[in-house]
Amino acid sequence: MVTPPPPEAADDAAPGDEVGLDPAVVARALAALDGGDADAVRAIARELHYSELAQLFGLIRPESRVDLVDALRPVFPAEIIPQLDEALRDEVAGQLGTDDLARALANLDTDDALYLIDGLEETKRNQVLLAIPRAIRAQIEEGLAFPEDSAGRLMQRDVVAVPAHWDVGTCIDYLRRGQDLPDDFYDLFVVDQRHRPIGWVPLDKFVRAQRATRISDLQETDFEPIQADMEQALVARMFKDRDLTSAPVVDAGGRLIGTITIDDVVDVIESEAEGGLMRLSGVAGSDVHAPVLSTARLRSAWLLVNLCTAFLAASVIGLFEASIAKVVALAVLMPICASMGGNAGTQALTVAVRALATGQLSAANAARIVVKEGIVGSLNGFLFAILTGAAAWLWFQDPAIGLCIGAAMMINLIVAGIAGVTTPIVLDRFGIDPAPSSAVILTTVTDVTGFFAFLGLATLFVL
Amino acid sequence: MVTPPPPEAADDAAPGDEVGLDPAVVARALAALDGGDADAVRAIARELHYSELAQLFGLIRPESRVDLVDALRPVFPAEIIPQLDEALRDEVAGQLGTDDLARALANLDTDDALYLIDGLEETKRNQVLLAIPRAIRAQIEEGLAFPEDSAGRLMQRDVVAVPAHWDVGTCIDYLRRGQDLPDDFYDLFVVDQRHRPIGWVPLDKFVRAQRATRISDLQETDFEPIQADMEQALVARMFKDRDLTSAPVVDAGGRLIGTITIDDVVDVIESEAEGGLMRLSGVAGSDVHAPVLSTARLRSAWLLVNLCTAFLAASVIGLFEASIAKVVALAVLMPICASMGGNAGTQALTVAVRALATGQLSAANAARIVVKEGIVGSLNGFLFAILTGAAAWLWFQDPAIGLCIGAAMMINLIVAGIAGVTTPIVLDRFGIDPAPSSAVILTTVTDVTGFFAFLGLATLFVL
Repeated sequence: MVTPPPPEAADDAAPGDEVGLDPAVVARALAALDGGDADAVRAIARELHYSELAQLFGLIRPESRVDLVDALRPVFPAEIIPQLDEALRDEVAGQLGTDDLARALANLDTDDALYLIDGLEETKRNQVLLAIPRAIRAQIEEGLAFPEDSAGRLMQRDVVAVPAHWDVGTCIDYLRRGQDLPDDFYDLFVVDQRHRPIGWVPLDKFVRAQRATRISDLQETDFEPIQADMEQALVARMFKDRDLTSAPVVDAGGRLIGTITIDDVVDVIESEAEGGLMRLSGVAGSDVHAPVLSTARLRSAWLLVNLCTAFLAASVIGLFEASIAKVVALAVLMPICASMGGNAGTQALTVAVRALATGQLSAANAARIVVKEGIVGSLNGFLFAILTGAAAWLWFQDPAIGLCIGAAMMINLIVAGIAGVTTPIVLDRFGIDPAPSSAVILTTVTDVTGFFAFLGLATLFVL
Repeated sequence: MVTPPPPEAADDAAPGDEVGLDPAVVARALAALDGGDADAVRAIARELHYSELAQLFGLIRPESRVDLVDALRPVFPAEIIPQLDEALRDEVAGQLGTDDLARALANLDTDDALYLIDGLEETKRNQVLLAIPRAIRAQIEEGLAFPEDSAGRLMQRDVVAVPAHWDVGTCIDYLRRGQDLPDDFYDLFVVDQRHRPIGWVPLDKFVRAQRATRISDLQETDFEPIQADMEQALVARMFKDRDLTSAPVVDAGGRLIGTITIDDVVDVIESEAEGGLMRLSGVAGSDVHAPVLSTARLRSAWLLVNLCTAFLAASVIGLFEASIAKVVALAVLMPICASMGGNAGTQALTVAVRALATGQLSAANAARIVVKEGIVGSLNGFLFAILTGAAAWLWFQDPAIGLCIGAAMMINLIVAGIAGVTTPIVLDRFGIDPAPSSAVILTTVTDVTGFFAFLGLATLFVL
């Protein structure tokens, strides 16, 4: 019954086969916005999925965004707000104004509303909270009491909780009455008299069961409830490892207070996975829409740290000024050794940071992995010592220079491998998130080692 | 009803509050393995979730892994295999042997089995395929016909398809009979007579509906079916943007041939998000368990590319040997300028690669973002020109050197910002994945510019 597509089909540009919005739609929207035709704008917005509409906001100029918000204002779709990057969200929130923003937020799930409210500056936040209906406001304020990056901030407050002694038929009738149910749910949670979760029934299992089946016979009990103060990164790991679609959240007394669903966790998984990359270079995720001045300011902090380490490396070179004055070839070759160390170290670092995050690197196997990186460093060190040494010898017609850079390369690649894996392990041991800080420590080590080893050896043996 | 935990509770090490397996469990498992007590090993394995058991494989020595596979062989839990890193998976698959491996694979969902089989070397793959029951083998072979990284490889073949004219009661009866249903499902797909998807009903909506409700009145039609040859990265983006839990997959004729569920997509989302980071430095995700020799070989390819660019940068320095011989301070300071350019460029690059992947950067706004990065580069260039220039002046007591390195810093940070964002845009325009190749192009540009600008200016104005 399955017919794999003919090979040439893969080349067809099927609709939706490109990331991003159809440029024709963007052009039509811009034409409608420039022409001031609000009806046409709303018609285009209706055609689009809310995620596409959110994308449109990012692709047009700031002036057109103002027009777009105004055109959509009477029918502003709340769902797009969580999809906007941070800088855009602030802009749109500011332009919507307190009342329209409050109305939009009241239509969102509590976790999304919470996330957005938390991102507002304090005066604006208080104004918006006051404009939100009291019951929803109370839920949001309770949510804000949980630590940032905790499970409590991710959870949806409406839950489907049923007692174990009910049968499937009773549950179905309860669900059909449908009061206070969440918008979307994937599992029924079974609770005891004190409202503590004791099991769960996936919906697909539930719909396949006969009406008379007792929930206690149907429930699965292989689960760990999530503490409301658990770190979101750990929640994400649990969802991923156990292939969950939703999970119960409990308070300190073990009582069910909400659920976390996979759609919220997906965002955490993505930002955790790319977190390393973004944080390593000191940039925030939303940067593409952030104003120029705040972008420059944010990035300058990281550049300042790098400037200090660059001067530290330069001061190592400074120790050998006399040698360089005698043999200028040293100056020409020295960046090679440092740069190769930086690259090799980053390879080991990348693997170690990921392995730490996934629990694949722990005290049980740390020593083994450090030894392994040392051996990998030696092997590649040997290979590149020969390549670089031979090239340097040929270039400067001096075997001693070739020997020195070869030996320095060997040393630096071994140091790089070992430092690349021990730096994040040590930081992690001291409770410091290794992703953002490891890289700068590592490149300092490899620069200093690279310059010192090469120039030092050359001072001893070439001069 | 919600009681946020008292602040001190956050410091309690609640069970499960650490990534990774409890060290006590690892120790018990090792003791049982070393003692050759297979019953005790199986008892420990039964206590663990399959994701924890998979973790245990990674934390113990290779010799103990052999014992662990042997102890578990009679009851080997197939679910752990997809959770193992690539190198471990090959090791375990090899040790299980053809028949036990085939039995394990036959118990997995088709997409997982497909993924594992595809990773085996050809002779082994054919042996295992022959040992798998014929019906499952046929499904797997059909799956292998889809391009790697296509939606077809991710999909589960069993689907829940119902006609629009059924009512809820008929559907429930059909589900309760439950033949050929997938293990897990979250949505019912509504198909026309030609088995083409025309709508879908989320299970939570389904269980809330009355028995007499027609599916046609219940179905949601706001969906795009996924072509079997669609790229997995685009599938992941669609799931994320639209908060899907499952989606129908269609063949070239538009007929429903399978479903993709969120648990498979989560893996794609994670590897796409971290892909940049891993691929930028030429390491594969599973590297922590890969054998030393293949790790060294894989990484050396990337280091070789970097060696070539390092020699290119060195040759730029070589042009100015005469200047360096006269003023050794140039050699001391020149790496600072190159290193700052590399860091600033990587910041712009990181943002651009992510924005391209999420559709936030396209032809519509590319020019605006390039200009923005140019301005950010000028602002930080100006700041760091002053800082570096002043520091260099003080260090070497020479205002001309300070002016030269300041000017070179300004030039390199502007070039870095513009190159950081244009490099991935241009690669993407030519259909090349920007993540792996951008970084090496960029650092070559910033190294060459940094050395050339500083040494060139110094040759003109300092000597």
